[in-house]
Amino acid sequence: MRQSQLFTKTVKDVSKEEVSKNAELLIRAGYVYKEMAGVYAYLPLGFRVLEKIKQIVREEMNAIGGQEIIMTAIQRKELWEKTNRWDDEMVDVWFKSQLKNGTDIGFGWSHEEPITEMMKQYLNSYKDLPVYVYQFQTKLRNELRAKSGIMRGREFVMKDMYSYTTDAEKHQEFYDSVIEAYLRIFSRVGLGDDTFVTFASGGAFTEFSHEFQTITEAGEDVIYINREKNIAINEEVMNEKTFAELGVTRDELQEVKTAEVGNIFNFGTVKCEQLGLNFTNESGESIPVHLGSYGIGITRLMGVIVERFSDEQGLVWPEAVAPYQVHLVSLCKETADIEKTDEVYTALTSAGIGVLYDDRADIRPGEKFADSDLIGIPYRVVVSPRTLEQQSVEVKKRTEKEATIVSLEEFRKKPQSFVCS
Amino acid sequence: MRQSQLFTKTVKDVSKEEVSKNAELLIRAGYVYKEMAGVYAYLPLGFRVLEKIKQIVREEMNAIGGQEIIMTAIQRKELWEKTNRWDDEMVDVWFKSQLKNGTDIGFGWSHEEPITEMMKQYLNSYKDLPVYVYQFQTKLRNELRAKSGIMRGREFVMKDMYSYTTDAEKHQEFYDSVIEAYLRIFSRVGLGDDTFVTFASGGAFTEFSHEFQTITEAGEDVIYINREKNIAINEEVMNEKTFAELGVTRDELQEVKTAEVGNIFNFGTVKCEQLGLNFTNESGESIPVHLGSYGIGITRLMGVIVERFSDEQGLVWPEAVAPYQVHLVSLCKETADIEKTDEVYTALTSAGIGVLYDDRADIRPGEKFADSDLIGIPYRVVVSPRTLEQQSVEVKKRTEKEATIVSLEEFRKKPQSFVCS
Repeated sequence: MRQSQLFTKTVKDVSKEEVSKNAELLIRAGYVYKEMAGVYAYLPLGFRVLEKIKQIVREEMNAIGGQEIIMTAIQRKELWEKTNRWDDEMVDVWFKSQLKNGTDIGFGWSHEEPITEMMKQYLNSYKDLPVYVYQFQTKLRNELRAKSGIMRGREFVMKDMYSYTTDAEKHQEFYDSVIEAYLRIFSRVGLGDDTFVTFASGGAFTEFSHEFQTITEAGEDVIYINREKNIAINEEVMNEKTFAELGVTRDELQEVKTAEVGNIFNFGTVKCEQLGLNFTNESGESIPVHLGSYGIGITRLMGVIVERFSDEQGLVWPEAVAPYQVHLVSLCKETADIEKTDEVYTALTSAGIGVLYDDRADIRPGEKFADSDLIGIPYRVVVSPRTLEQQSVEVKKRTEKEATIVSLEEFRKKPQSFVCS
Repeated sequence: MRQSQLFTKTVKDVSKEEVSKNAELLIRAGYVYKEMAGVYAYLPLGFRVLEKIKQIVREEMNAIGGQEIIMTAIQRKELWEKTNRWDDEMVDVWFKSQLKNGTDIGFGWSHEEPITEMMKQYLNSYKDLPVYVYQFQTKLRNELRAKSGIMRGREFVMKDMYSYTTDAEKHQEFYDSVIEAYLRIFSRVGLGDDTFVTFASGGAFTEFSHEFQTITEAGEDVIYINREKNIAINEEVMNEKTFAELGVTRDELQEVKTAEVGNIFNFGTVKCEQLGLNFTNESGESIPVHLGSYGIGITRLMGVIVERFSDEQGLVWPEAVAPYQVHLVSLCKETADIEKTDEVYTALTSAGIGVLYDDRADIRPGEKFADSDLIGIPYRVVVSPRTLEQQSVEVKKRTEKEATIVSLEEFRKKPQSFVCS
């Protein structure tokens, strides 16, 4: 992509009411646009990051047998009344409206109910189970406060997966495979070292439930970790019983601020009992299905990545989720030099490498470098009259201070050996 | 995909209240699930079709310089008041709700206003223009009636593109390139012969505007066409003046029912004047930007494709949008035969061909064939004890009656030569 064509520009000033670092940086760098608190549009660069994250999540969900679908935003009152989750006293994040004929509708803040209801059409026998489905859905939640940028939205993208199994044992097997898949996801997006499977209170069916918490000052949660033992505990279950079970003592634990990037939840058979999703088992009995639900906030994850890796100069994207792999910055003004830079651009794109090409005329080098740091693409490749004089280009990682001089010929021949980790 | 793993099944009975052919077939074949009138979820097969259509549209939008973004569902009242489109008297399809603090919000039924407002952050000079952006957005519209299945939804996916240009001439150039891109899209999805660029009333800026209308009995529009002259006219402009300008007479025109699959619209400078999107031209004057908007209803397009190609037995997908290219139907019961069918499956997937593999046990051949016709995948490949006895497989196009016998060895060696047009 030629930067001269990209409609977004870096902006210097962000409204004072934007208090979160992630949104401030993403707005300044032109990744997102703030519609209102907790409601952000994703511009070309931001859209690309979201799609990269989604693709990683999609691959891991497919690998454990997930089938992708897309449910609806519009929700029926009667359905949610069956599980006592329509009432604003019970669920305080509903946005509601009405059809022209006065019928009440809500906008989906979660999808256990409609997916389970839908499954009644397809799941009848033990032979139909297990089923694992997931979606990337824009959730709408009427949050009282929305001050964490894209980490807590009134409108946000969530990957939600649902498992339908015959019994507790089959549920547990899949639940464990989701834990593994989630760990692979957080590792692939660059948050592996800072993300902990955290013990939390288990609800009705299990002693513990599990949250995926990533260490970040911008988080709204507090957990207690022991890195050596790879143990993390939520405040709710910080007690002697838990310590004994996990083989850890209070003073071995360190308090850290975190953001919940994923959750996995066991509904047991309660939800399917409420909604009447039964199946016939091998003995011919009709019994309720076991339901698990597994969420990853996609836009939140993007926000956490920003918080974790940004520095004084701006964003710093891990390669797996960066909008482009290379920021090719041209400081050339003469036609012959520009042609040589164009050839570098072609060499990179021909090698299948994503490139943002700063071909803008009339922009000073200092401003180009500042923009490049703010936008945070993993590799910066500079072509200037000076580098061309030496038949070279200058390659620098966003995370490093020093640039490397690479021969123009070698770079053009095999660019991937200089700009991929 | 192994059909034994696919959670959807074909269903025999669809609620009587579903009166549209497209929704009835899509529900029966397991592509969509009806949440309520005009509100449909897309299940694994339906999701794949939608993504195929989106990808074709995306390629054509990128080819004419479109930059993909995603705006928000939640809309600000103040913004839409500026253009007099907040009032329910002016726009009767709003869904509205409120934030916790009582602030009114609406849910996006169109996005000219927020995109134009957002552009004020980025468009200042003639050097910043033109800009072309697009999105695939879930639109929410409080339609009074929703009886056309996925062809008219209360919740539906739309590709909407917006062009920002310096003047009427630049606008016209891009407008013309969108017409060409749209024609390529409709041709690629299989509707080329039945889709007409239709003259409609032009509004304030041009004598005519253009609609893309596809002939279908399920459509809600009526147009008048002359296939030889490739002329189509909307009812609004059916008059002597139009006939004279287009060089056609009334009795050369045939009345047909159609569905509007695409629209392109010239806002001139009105919208940008209302919202204050100005730019500085080469003479240093501040003048308003020209706006065009260009829509394709993605879910509607899917509905029209269903209506156009289905037959008595079920769906008939054009290859470009089919969920899978091949429906591999196994009638085998013996382990050795099943292994041979598995090898055919592997040969197809290794060749990069999308396959739905009906590996279900306990299902009679007649039912498998009926399901296959209902699901409507372009090529059916049958492997049975009988075909294996002859060292062969049976290949049949969904659109043809007769099957072809192909040698198992040849098919496994180069499956693409038998199942791709």
